[in-house]
Amino acid sequence: MTIVGVGLIGGSLALAARRAGAVQTVVGVGRSPANREVALVRGLVDRATDDLSSGVRDADLVVLAVPVREIVRLLPGVARATGPACVVTDVGSVKGPILTAGDEAFPDGRFVAGHPIAGKEQSGPAAARADLFHDANWLLTPGERTQAGAVERVEALCRAAGARAVRMGAGWHDEVFATVSHLPHLVAYALMDAVLGTERGAERIRFSAGGLRDFTRVAGSDPAMWRDIFLMNREPVLRVLAEYQRALGRLAAAIRDGDGEQLEARLLQARVAREGLVHRS
Amino acid sequence: MTIVGVGLIGGSLALAARRAGAVQTVVGVGRSPANREVALVRGLVDRATDDLSSGVRDADLVVLAVPVREIVRLLPGVARATGPACVVTDVGSVKGPILTAGDEAFPDGRFVAGHPIAGKEQSGPAAARADLFHDANWLLTPGERTQAGAVERVEALCRAAGARAVRMGAGWHDEVFATVSHLPHLVAYALMDAVLGTERGAERIRFSAGGLRDFTRVAGSDPAMWRDIFLMNREPVLRVLAEYQRALGRLAAAIRDGDGEQLEARLLQARVAREGLVHRS
Repeated sequence: MTIVGVGLIGGSLALAARRAGAVQTVVGVGRSPANREVALVRGLVDRATDDLSSGVRDADLVVLAVPVREIVRLLPGVARATGPACVVTDVGSVKGPILTAGDEAFPDGRFVAGHPIAGKEQSGPAAARADLFHDANWLLTPGERTQAGAVERVEALCRAAGARAVRMGAGWHDEVFATVSHLPHLVAYALMDAVLGTERGAERIRFSAGGLRDFTRVAGSDPAMWRDIFLMNREPVLRVLAEYQRALGRLAAAIRDGDGEQLEARLLQARVAREGLVHRS
Repeated sequence: MTIVGVGLIGGSLALAARRAGAVQTVVGVGRSPANREVALVRGLVDRATDDLSSGVRDADLVVLAVPVREIVRLLPGVARATGPACVVTDVGSVKGPILTAGDEAFPDGRFVAGHPIAGKEQSGPAAARADLFHDANWLLTPGERTQAGAVERVEALCRAAGARAVRMGAGWHDEVFATVSHLPHLVAYALMDAVLGTERGAERIRFSAGGLRDFTRVAGSDPAMWRDIFLMNREPVLRVLAEYQRALGRLAAAIRDGDGEQLEARLLQARVAREGLVHRS
């Protein structure tokens, strides 16, 4: 198995697959010498290189664990360097455009688009842990062209990592994650931006208790990674964002009009939605 | 001391003041028989009643620990039932309108508007704890009419509860809390509302990981309490909400235009604001 991108996700997957005895040799491909060194020292990989072609050449399973735009950029090179028996998958959080690019790069259908629902605030191979995917959903979004055998190989990898493999359509995946992940990040970024933009904003922040603090983890994520996610999942994100702007506008109107009844009804509804979420966890 | 409203805040204050030996007898005024019972059984209060006048009559310190609209409604009755040596304070999270109503009800300046920055997800006297205010800021917003001696009495109570008493103007308080507390709550409520409003919204929620979950604590707060806070702090809330809508609009425009550079710059700025917040905690 070759992991392209030995960060938190790639490194954790290497560790989990190895522990489960699902792989023999793991090769890591990464641009950062420091990350390669950490991956070697921690035993996440047996060999590490910065050369994509030589890194994937002998693999029968390749996992692309780099940011979404990088995945699209690397797919053709991985296709050229690997043989027909090698299955290729990815872990990007946008699936439609990656499936399209994957189908184009692998007309023989050995690319399986995937997205493990796991992560934590830290990043990099130093934060990798074998149980990161334990009990997590690992979404797979095969297209019409994707080989059934390739999907099964990736499902076996998910299970070896302790996750539940769940199949869904790439379009529906992108709608769902625009809603439950991309929009909340956008909302948190906008909130921090707005707070800082107020008069004496930094001084105001000193008084924050719960309210604002709960948003900080979300707004602390990597800007370059999120830029690419927002741009790559542009249409679904803009759709749910418009829905959100309408919801915000309704609350603003109720406050402006002093309409307590309408305001309370809307807050109550939001709380009910929240309870559905909490009780499921 | 009489505590009007023996919930989480009122009950915790009773407990903390008692432990510190700052009060001798504590009377609790509350409408809910169940809450009065819990307050008595847990020893938060020595006596409990649902009658405001008799509850505050012999007190030399009265704390109004009820929702903001209730505070405004109760002030005249407390003024009528108490003598000139009794100092009255409140714990509401909006200060301008309460200070105005307090100055009107207490022309002799024995009302001190206050706001302890403490709380937790649970509510009610069963959740009360003596260390709730430990190391917290307790904001006091005296007006021109407020007696210096009355402010000092309330400051001593704050310190007895383990908090830091901090004086600030009521107008600035309301601007700050519109920004760091009321706006984040509004944003979280709107987010839950929007998510539920999407097609197959409940199904989408099933897939939520970190992003949406971080907002749930905030959107789970009491709708009636927040309705009153939003309506009572209407102007500052609408001002920061407009700032927020502009920030959201800028992000939406950058995504719509595919302007990666602009988008990343905005996300980076939000992250810097967030780091200022995190490092202070």
